[in-house]
Amino acid sequence: MRIGFIGLGGMGQPMAENLLKAGFEVAVWNRSATPAEALKAQGARICATPAEFTDSDVLITMLADDDISREVVIGQGALGALPPGAIWINMATVSVAFTEEMAANSSARGSRYVAAPVLGRVDVAAAGNLNILTAGDSDLLDKVQPIFDVLGSKTWRFGDRPEQAAAVKLAANFMLASAIEAMGESAALVDAYDVAPADFLGMLTSTLFAAPAYKNYGAMIAENRYTPAGFTMKLGLKDVRLAQQAAESKHVPMGIAGVLRDNYLDALAHGDENLDWAALATVSARRSGKK
Amino acid sequence: MRIGFIGLGGMGQPMAENLLKAGFEVAVWNRSATPAEALKAQGARICATPAEFTDSDVLITMLADDDISREVVIGQGALGALPPGAIWINMATVSVAFTEEMAANSSARGSRYVAAPVLGRVDVAAAGNLNILTAGDSDLLDKVQPIFDVLGSKTWRFGDRPEQAAAVKLAANFMLASAIEAMGESAALVDAYDVAPADFLGMLTSTLFAAPAYKNYGAMIAENRYTPAGFTMKLGLKDVRLAQQAAESKHVPMGIAGVLRDNYLDALAHGDENLDWAALATVSARRSGKK
Amino acid sequence: MRIGFIGLGGMGQPMAENLLKAGFEVAVWNRSATPAEALKAQGARICATPAEFTDSDVLITMLADDDISREVVIGQGALGALPPGAIWINMATVSVAFTEEMAANSSARGSRYVAAPVLGRVDVAAAGNLNILTAGDSDLLDKVQPIFDVLGSKTWRFGDRPEQAAAVKLAANFMLASAIEAMGESAALVDAYDVAPADFLGMLTSTLFAAPAYKNYGAMIAENRYTPAGFTMKLGLKDVRLAQQAAESKHVPMGIAGVLRDNYLDALAHGDENLDWAALATVSARRSGKK
Amino acid sequence: MRIGFIGLGGMGQPMAENLLKAGFEVAVWNRSATPAEALKAQGARICATPAEFTDSDVLITMLADDDISREVVIGQGALGALPPGAIWINMATVSVAFTEEMAANSSARGSRYVAAPVLGRVDVAAAGNLNILTAGDSDLLDKVQPIFDVLGSKTWRFGDRPEQAAAVKLAANFMLASAIEAMGESAALVDAYDVAPADFLGMLTSTLFAAPAYKNYGAMIAENRYTPAGFTMKLGLKDVRLAQQAAESKHVPMGIAGVLRDNYLDALAHGDENLDWAALATVSARRSGKK
Repeated sequence: MRIGFIGLGGMGQPMAENLLKAGFEVAVWNRSATPAEALKAQGARICATPAEFTDSDVLITMLADDDISREVVIGQGALGALPPGAIWINMATVSVAFTEEMAANSSARGSRYVAAPVLGRVDVAAAGNLNILTAGDSDLLDKVQPIFDVLGSKTWRFGDRPEQAAAVKLAANFMLASAIEAMGESAALVDAYDVAPADFLGMLTSTLFAAPAYKNYGAMIAENRYTPAGFTMKLGLKDVRLAQQAAESKHVPMGIAGVLRDNYLDALAHGDENLDWAALATVSARRSGKK
Repeated sequence: MRIGFIGLGGMGQPMAENLLKAGFEVAVWNRSATPAEALKAQGARICATPAEFTDSDVLITMLADDDISREVVIGQGALGALPPGAIWINMATVSVAFTEEMAANSSARGSRYVAAPVLGRVDVAAAGNLNILTAGDSDLLDKVQPIFDVLGSKTWRFGDRPEQAAAVKLAANFMLASAIEAMGESAALVDAYDVAPADFLGMLTSTLFAAPAYKNYGAMIAENRYTPAGFTMKLGLKDVRLAQQAAESKHVPMGIAGVLRDNYLDALAHGDENLDWAALATVSARRSGKK
Repeated sequence: MRIGFIGLGGMGQPMAENLLKAGFEVAVWNRSATPAEALKAQGARICATPAEFTDSDVLITMLADDDISREVVIGQGALGALPPGAIWINMATVSVAFTEEMAANSSARGSRYVAAPVLGRVDVAAAGNLNILTAGDSDLLDKVQPIFDVLGSKTWRFGDRPEQAAAVKLAANFMLASAIEAMGESAALVDAYDVAPADFLGMLTSTLFAAPAYKNYGAMIAENRYTPAGFTMKLGLKDVRLAQQAAESKHVPMGIAGVLRDNYLDALAHGDENLDWAALATVSARRSGKK
Repeated sequence: MRIGFIGLGGMGQPMAENLLKAGFEVAVWNRSATPAEALKAQGARICATPAEFTDSDVLITMLADDDISREVVIGQGALGALPPGAIWINMATVSVAFTEEMAANSSARGSRYVAAPVLGRVDVAAAGNLNILTAGDSDLLDKVQPIFDVLGSKTWRFGDRPEQAAAVKLAANFMLASAIEAMGESAALVDAYDVAPADFLGMLTSTLFAAPAYKNYGAMIAENRYTPAGFTMKLGLKDVRLAQQAAESKHVPMGIAGVLRDNYLDALAHGDENLDWAALATVSARRSGKK
């Protein structure tokens, strides 16, 4: 299976590397050249434009958002250049609407679309331990499973319509933002009674909430440490917006999502767009007069 | 140490039993006689009224709420009957304001107050594995630590003012309700895309949210199983209200708490007051037209 | 009809005066003596304690809140001292629960209770143009109508249970707070596009929103002028809380009330408790980074 | 001044008619032919396509939303066909982002853009009594003022950037939706105490809230009468979304907007998309178990 790979950012780079190590034939393209050069040394072929994946059986994209994905894959011709029957696996977090649009676009051009966003940050990607949230035609999913086996520790199939995986990924990010917000609010509450948030969160994450999401973000909140950002406030707001859009088109009210949205906006209005999205907790502190 | 114990409900009964098994001398009183009789067989002395704990070094209460606690301990004379210097350990979930009031009341009558609400349901209480969230004068906490060692697997100290433990307990319950609400909202979202909530929640609770709180309530939501209630909707609303009151007196806005409140009210308006409080998730389903 | 009048604050003083002018025999009591002295010159009898209204056919109270009303009327014996069959008209804004409690209390002591909170500030009270929101037994309401005719320009009857008028008054105050909040949010929105809130609010209050509530508070918001306070932020929060409690006991979710509550808390956390409650609008400004 | 007019819906038809009556030379185009035919009898020239306004000094559009406006004006060539220096007045409610995009588009093609959304429904448009909310270069506004004088009773200028008028219009619609929601919540509250919402709303709209917005929507809510729709629930949701987008790009949290959004979604999930947007009030009734 010849794989084309577009998007060698923090996540894409180690994922492409893992595919090379596993013996796949990998061609890459990236907006800036440096990350591609690094992969060249490991055996990757470098494409000069996104339209050169003419012999890829599978195209994997890991780009920042809907707009950039559309620009590169449609605008710069990546999809159009693929051979008939090729499979496009989009592993980025994109909107449900974009997913539906791209699935239709792929069909129209003789390709097939698989949505496969992931859970896990850079270190998890490097270790090949991502959780892969996928949806698409089951034949396609079977075909690309060997790729998923390299990139992740587990693949979760959510149906045969790609937008199902997009919805699941947005719901998962909503869960994370909700956990951060709840910790922020309760930390502000106990802080008002002179209980150190670190003591409260330490107790919680050792007991009922002893889970990676809480331990990771709870420690950041406890230490008031939001740089370097693993995932920025700005991106946090974007993903809440995508979850709200996905919910809106199906008429699903989501009360916590509205709270999250307003608090991200409050944070951005105060200049915090580049902090880690766990800095959502600082909004509760500021509103209660503690910051 | 002679211990008086008031409140032999689902939690109190096994807690008193554990104290007897550990060799403490325990006297008990309960509104209805049956649970006390059971303990008598295990060696407990039964008091006919709450005012008979005249030789207890420590009085433990585990009553339903502020009003019942006040009625029994103050109204029926339990506190007034204690010997000088006795310690009252209130292990129930009560309000911050009630805690402050009772601490003052205890001082005024020559007793001393320790707040020690717990995390854990009936089975955890029976196993002696509660997490004990305590606050009060450190000398007092040291004195009663042997009791906590019997009842719980770990004691967490949050300060020398009893209301600090009350605030922590309410914040912890708020965290649980927030987790339930977030699961309810995201389950409604993925359901709208024909992804079974069980599949989504199963994935989450095996990965980022692999914690007891999520596994327990996630399974109930996935199976739409809300009876028998471990903790009812009505009590869920009560604890959200107590958290809001604690927050209000310190001027702490809590956006998610407002969402929780309204959704509990929606559920109660639809007759669900006696379901398990995880049934909060059914509100998101109903609002999105799925129920 | 001999009238007893308790509570000669900003509202009560001109109300009692109007009753004197209309020829009623009025006895008064007030916590501080000065306002009572002023009324003495106009013909009022001054009582030394709240328990001296022993010959009043009607007792009117206009006290700050539930606690003070309970303290004076029950605690200091005003209700107990009334002659059999006397009518207590409570014209203050109090909670639904307190209203129910006092109606029962009155019956138990041989008196009868009428709830009659008012719409209108001090100048309206002075002009005898209050809107009187009343509920109680219709025979009683007929009897005291001559009093209402002096105090107000219009009396609105909402039923035979006093708590109905209490609920209506709280709902009306909720409407006002909602209007202020909506103006605050939309002012922040247009301000972000460099449209002066004064221009926007001026247009609104000349067109679709040309009503006293909007003109009054819209001007304060437009001019960023929140002193002197006609009604403070702290009282605004109190009335939102009373509306929420009234709603909670009947299981009525009120989404805007939750927003109001959090924004009042935000304001109080920033030291604004004594500003006019229209200063709620400053929270939207601050959150969007404009203040 | 030769005027081109596109969009002869409920609002556009009487507006075009008024321009004809005032003696303007008017050419029209509409998607369906019938409304145009009616205007022909009154002297309008009918265009066969949107690209035939080649001699219009001013093009007025009154189309349903961003997408249709873009499709007709850009896609079908209306803007491109205008003579150099022509003025495009967009009187529809569109997004801030679309306004900015179209202003830039107009400049690029040698035309100039004026935003002039209106307040007022069909009968107000017919009477020439609209309130016109406008923004754009002041020279342009001066030039088209004679047109505004025919269509409206008053023109409000909000600045020289067209998006300022778009923001003001969205803020005004947000105010209306907020008023409806507040009435819905408070009606549910008093209803829970057996006070007829009609009595409560009747009192309010005769006193503090005696304004067109409240009288109009208050009566609909009191009578539970939501057909025929003057403006549908679906459009209500759309305008809340546009207000939220306008707020998001400037980092303005709007708590009530979040409540509105969720309640519109709740209504749409229950099949009410074609009711008048005052039917938002039914959500509070349903949530409190009254419907």
